[in-house]
Amino acid sequence: MAEKETGRLEAFSDGVFAVAITLLVLDIHVPSLAVAAGGDPGAALLSALKSQWPSMAAYVISFLTILVMWINHNRLFEQIHRKDHQLLVYNGLLLMLVTLIPFPTALVAEYIRTPYAQTAAAVYCGLNVLMACAFNQLWSYAAKDGRLLAAEHDPHRVRHITQQYRFGPILYGAAFALAFVNVTVCVIMVAALAVFFALPERTKMA
Amino acid sequence: MAEKETGRLEAFSDGVFAVAITLLVLDIHVPSLAVAAGGDPGAALLSALKSQWPSMAAYVISFLTILVMWINHNRLFEQIHRKDHQLLVYNGLLLMLVTLIPFPTALVAEYIRTPYAQTAAAVYCGLNVLMACAFNQLWSYAAKDGRLLAAEHDPHRVRHITQQYRFGPILYGAAFALAFVNVTVCVIMVAALAVFFALPERTKMA
Amino acid sequence: MAEKETGRLEAFSDGVFAVAITLLVLDIHVPSLAVAAGGDPGAALLSALKSQWPSMAAYVISFLTILVMWINHNRLFEQIHRKDHQLLVYNGLLLMLVTLIPFPTALVAEYIRTPYAQTAAAVYCGLNVLMACAFNQLWSYAAKDGRLLAAEHDPHRVRHITQQYRFGPILYGAAFALAFVNVTVCVIMVAALAVFFALPERTKMA
Amino acid sequence: MAEKETGRLEAFSDGVFAVAITLLVLDIHVPSLAVAAGGDPGAALLSALKSQWPSMAAYVISFLTILVMWINHNRLFEQIHRKDHQLLVYNGLLLMLVTLIPFPTALVAEYIRTPYAQTAAAVYCGLNVLMACAFNQLWSYAAKDGRLLAAEHDPHRVRHITQQYRFGPILYGAAFALAFVNVTVCVIMVAALAVFFALPERTKMA
Repeated sequence: MAEKETGRLEAFSDGVFAVAITLLVLDIHVPSLAVAAGGDPGAALLSALKSQWPSMAAYVISFLTILVMWINHNRLFEQIHRKDHQLLVYNGLLLMLVTLIPFPTALVAEYIRTPYAQTAAAVYCGLNVLMACAFNQLWSYAAKDGRLLAAEHDPHRVRHITQQYRFGPILYGAAFALAFVNVTVCVIMVAALAVFFALPERTKMA
Repeated sequence: MAEKETGRLEAFSDGVFAVAITLLVLDIHVPSLAVAAGGDPGAALLSALKSQWPSMAAYVISFLTILVMWINHNRLFEQIHRKDHQLLVYNGLLLMLVTLIPFPTALVAEYIRTPYAQTAAAVYCGLNVLMACAFNQLWSYAAKDGRLLAAEHDPHRVRHITQQYRFGPILYGAAFALAFVNVTVCVIMVAALAVFFALPERTKMA
Repeated sequence: MAEKETGRLEAFSDGVFAVAITLLVLDIHVPSLAVAAGGDPGAALLSALKSQWPSMAAYVISFLTILVMWINHNRLFEQIHRKDHQLLVYNGLLLMLVTLIPFPTALVAEYIRTPYAQTAAAVYCGLNVLMACAFNQLWSYAAKDGRLLAAEHDPHRVRHITQQYRFGPILYGAAFALAFVNVTVCVIMVAALAVFFALPERTKMA
Repeated sequence: MAEKETGRLEAFSDGVFAVAITLLVLDIHVPSLAVAAGGDPGAALLSALKSQWPSMAAYVISFLTILVMWINHNRLFEQIHRKDHQLLVYNGLLLMLVTLIPFPTALVAEYIRTPYAQTAAAVYCGLNVLMACAFNQLWSYAAKDGRLLAAEHDPHRVRHITQQYRFGPILYGAAFALAFVNVTVCVIMVAALAVFFALPERTKMA
């Protein structure tokens, strides 16, 4: 078996994914409360925390999104064992989109309860469309005639990935379109996509 | 010996632990002081620093908490050598809880000296309960019939971990309940749990 | 083949590159909008986002800059397999310059549309000049008589790198000088350099 | 040669060092300038940047400090190849001190030009004393009777490290004491120590 050439690419990518996924928490702010003039202080803090639900929901959805990106990255590089300059660049562009996730996340969390919600949701979904395209680009470059795949790659698995990846841009494109129709349904669809991709492979195939 | 499959899972987890544990310091703010109108400036700065003790204590406790989480993660993956999609997801959920630690940490540091202390402490302990459950979930999934363990795993050690992990949710659950009785005792218990788990194995068994 | 000694140097460097490239996103702030008194809220948010284009452009240019630095670091350490104390120090100084990138980035984004643009652009380009010098220093130290190169290094490739690296300080020095002539042309040149270095090797040689 | 057991310990530590060293840049703020009412805008921004020299100096000194810590960590783990729970804990405590560095750094940068400088410098040096002690603790635990060293460790090198490490707490202790005598001399000494430890081994022995 030839030595894997993608060690540092994976280490650098793991670092970027790890930092991006951990920075999300910086958008959850400790609520500021005056010392209670009366009433139940516990209830006051709890209700302040509850009013942060958009931040919390954005946190969970974004965390799952980045996690799913990482799991997918992992899956691709079980097949990709060689590298060239172009692969480093495509991988870098993918990582650029991943590191951007905290921005539309904060945007949605800030504006979900305002008239700006639609635009914020569209920006969020737009980034997801771009990410789905970047994954397709990276994979089809590496898999074309198996040029950067492991010599012993599994052709069945490679075909399966190629087929599955075709749906990513379409599904996230649909969520993007939904942002202009109904923001609530759009957010639910993005959450559902994250949960769906987070399900084990076998469950999805069943 | 079969090759370990969990290399990237461990590298990504190490990255998340490392970022989460290092971000804690961002919650320790440099105190703002006007130029002293008189008196001893050294004493003024020292007393400003001393008044930050809740931040400092929260920092130390949270650092030790994440460190203990990492040591435990380490210990589990000395036994776990194989992976599947579900393990990646369980591990991701565990990491999501780990990255959340800076938030309740800052919450407790902000409100420990106010009437909101009880609720803040309960949120902090609640997260610890969830983490103990996530560790149990990850471990029992991987260890069931030894499905993801190394072929040459140590059955005595595996049984020992399983038994020890049963107590995590109970102990942190007790700290959670204590938050509603006496916040000081609750904080001391969380600190004691962190110190206890940070002690070397042999000491604990003695 | 002798064992590579630079494992931890590369892991630490990957970590620094990964954090620096991910922290860039912290300089893109969610725009603050009052609840729209009238008109189209979507258009209002979109135009607020569009007015952030200097932040966005700085983000993309800086991301590509750090990515190109990382790709170059990668390329050097395919040839460099041994280490000594001095290499760790030269590598550390290079990383110090890389981690500084977010600062002039934010400076340029803040002042590009003000009379301060020239100075901000000069600071940005100045850092790039220093980085090109640091790369030269690291490489010429390691490559001198092949002292830290792999025993089986490719002499053709080594010569090629040495020749190409000579142009880095000159090109970025030219961009630095341009900052005092025309800021727009200077910014375009920096962007062009980033895109140029991001092109695959073969394209550049063609 | 027995397999090295400290892989994840080193990966986690590299991550913490990398994040801590990169977070330092967050303490360098872009200066806020009103649009110049007259005069030379370039000179105005340059002088605003120059007035930030304490931040810049603190950045450079702290970066070199953490870099030297990492180089030392590296050097120790060339000899240490085995691990136990206690080593993980001692290493964790060392990392806790390393991640704290941004705090006294910001403290010194904020107060160096005020009457609070002395106290700030003392806090900074105090942390360095603790770090020197933590290194001694880690090393003497691992090296005692060679218990966690590689079977093929170099006894001459081990003795050399042990001897050199004795001076760390003393030198930083002297800097700590100097803070109460003359802050300028103290800061120069800390800078000199960082530069001294950053020099290649051979130079120091000459």
